[in-house]
Amino acid sequence: MEKVNLTEKFSKFSDYWSPKIAGEINDSYVKLVKLKGEFVWHHHEQEDELFLVVKGKLLIKLRDRDILLEEGEFVIIPRGVEHLPITEEEAHVILLEPKSTLNTGNTQNERTVANLDRI
Amino acid sequence: MEKVNLTEKFSKFSDYWSPKIAGEINDSYVKLVKLKGEFVWHHHEQEDELFLVVKGKLLIKLRDRDILLEEGEFVIIPRGVEHLPITEEEAHVILLEPKSTLNTGNTQNERTVANLDRI
Repeated sequence: MEKVNLTEKFSKFSDYWSPKIAGEINDSYVKLVKLKGEFVWHHHEQEDELFLVVKGKLLIKLRDRDILLEEGEFVIIPRGVEHLPITEEEAHVILLEPKSTLNTGNTQNERTVANLDRI
Repeated sequence: MEKVNLTEKFSKFSDYWSPKIAGEINDSYVKLVKLKGEFVWHHHEQEDELFLVVKGKLLIKLRDRDILLEEGEFVIIPRGVEHLPITEEEAHVILLEPKSTLNTGNTQNERTVANLDRI
């Protein structure tokens, strides 16, 4: 087991919306992802999903309201809740979700990343 | 669902070695804990445990080596691995672990906190 330095790991990739596996804990992965721009509306049928912002800002649109996450803030989106992540500038985000979770949830399209790299 | 601001939550308590529940995700809790001094050697039979340092430094002694975590670093201690958290100065740490996890793992003593507050 090795420790993970977030700054060092985030320096190792530059692609957006492509989560990297940084750790494995019980049935879940800790993933690191860089976000910029707008994703797609989706939800996860069975999985709650945590977003923790370590750099930048992340707007998570819900159907009835928006949640703006700044550095040092997290939110847990419960299973079944539709959400749309948007950032104006690059944001660095830690995701925590079950290993079964697909980034686009119930939707599969060109934004879907099924086989994640480990970092 | 509400977002959690880590700085704000950590300002709300001052006791050490007493994790507070800050979120619930699938079968796990996100917990916030302030650490200072030395804990007790223990392991968790069935649960992997994540330590993410958001302020200060945390030394995790293992039986064969030490891991020093600084701000922005995390480690996942696999189930079964004995560990002893130590800090010289106050450290603020995010824990992620299954709901079933007891802070003292296989050991129960005066440091055990069985009923965690939510924050």
